[in-house]
Amino acid sequence: MYSILHRVVIEASNEAVFNAIKTEEGITAWWSKAKIQDDRLTLAFGESGEHEAHFNIKQCQANKNIVWQCVAGPWQETGEFEFNISEDERGTCLHFAHHGWLAADDFYQHCNCKWAFFLASSLKAYLETGLGLPHPNDPNI
Amino acid sequence: MYSILHRVVIEASNEAVFNAIKTEEGITAWWSKAKIQDDRLTLAFGESGEHEAHFNIKQCQANKNIVWQCVAGPWQETGEFEFNISEDERGTCLHFAHHGWLAADDFYQHCNCKWAFFLASSLKAYLETGLGLPHPNDPNI
Repeated sequence: MYSILHRVVIEASNEAVFNAIKTEEGITAWWSKAKIQDDRLTLAFGESGEHEAHFNIKQCQANKNIVWQCVAGPWQETGEFEFNISEDERGTCLHFAHHGWLAADDFYQHCNCKWAFFLASSLKAYLETGLGLPHPNDPNI
Repeated sequence: MYSILHRVVIEASNEAVFNAIKTEEGITAWWSKAKIQDDRLTLAFGESGEHEAHFNIKQCQANKNIVWQCVAGPWQETGEFEFNISEDERGTCLHFAHHGWLAADDFYQHCNCKWAFFLASSLKAYLETGLGLPHPNDPNI
C-alpha cells in the first residue's frame, strides 16, 4: 500500500486550520465546492461542478484531527484522507495523508501533485491572506 | 525505501521540457540559481543563495531522460532525481522521481510538497507562459 504524504506549516492558529478543513465555507475556499450534512461531505468539481465525490466524516477531534473516508467518486478505491494538526513555532503544522493506494501509479502521482497545490498554495494562502485558490484555479496537470 | 513521485502534463514540446531541465538558464528559471560544468550541477538556495547542493549528471538522453545524483547537500543521503519525458496529447508528460528515502519522514513530506510546486506551478508556468516561480517564490512551508 502507498500513501500520499505532505507536511505544511501555516502561519495561522490550530483552530483556524481546523475550521478551514471542517466547514463547508472553509473547504470551498481552498479545495472545491463543498456541502456538509451530518457526517457526510460532498465535493463538487469538474469544469462546471458536474462531478462529485462523497465522503464519510469518520473522525473529527477539535483543533487536532479530521479523517474522511471516500465512499463514492474517484477515490472510492483508495479511501482514507487524514489531517493532523499540531503546534509549530510559526503557527500550525499540518500533516496530510491520503492512504490506501494499491500502486504509486499515474493517478497517485497526479493526485500527489494536486494535494500539494491545494495544501501548500491554496489552503495556506486562504489562511494567511484570506484568499485561497480553490478548483478550478489548480494547475491543469 | 520511499520515493517522491509526481506526474505533470505540460503544454510544451518534449524538447522544450528537456532543455528546461538540462540547461543552467532553464533550471534557474523554475527551481533555483543553477551552474553546470561538465557533468556537475550546482544549485544555490537559501535566503541569499548561501546554501548549495551538488549533483552529478548521471544520465542525459536527449528529449527523454535526465538523472541527477546528489553528492553533497541536503539530499546527499537520499540521492537520485529522475526526470522522464514522454508524449502526451496536450504536449509533454513529465514523470519525476526522487528516490532513496529511508523513511517517509517530515523532510520527505516537506520535499514532496516543494517538488510539486516547482514542477506543477513553476516549471509548467515557465514553459507555458515564459515566467516561472523559482526559489524564493516557493511557499514558505
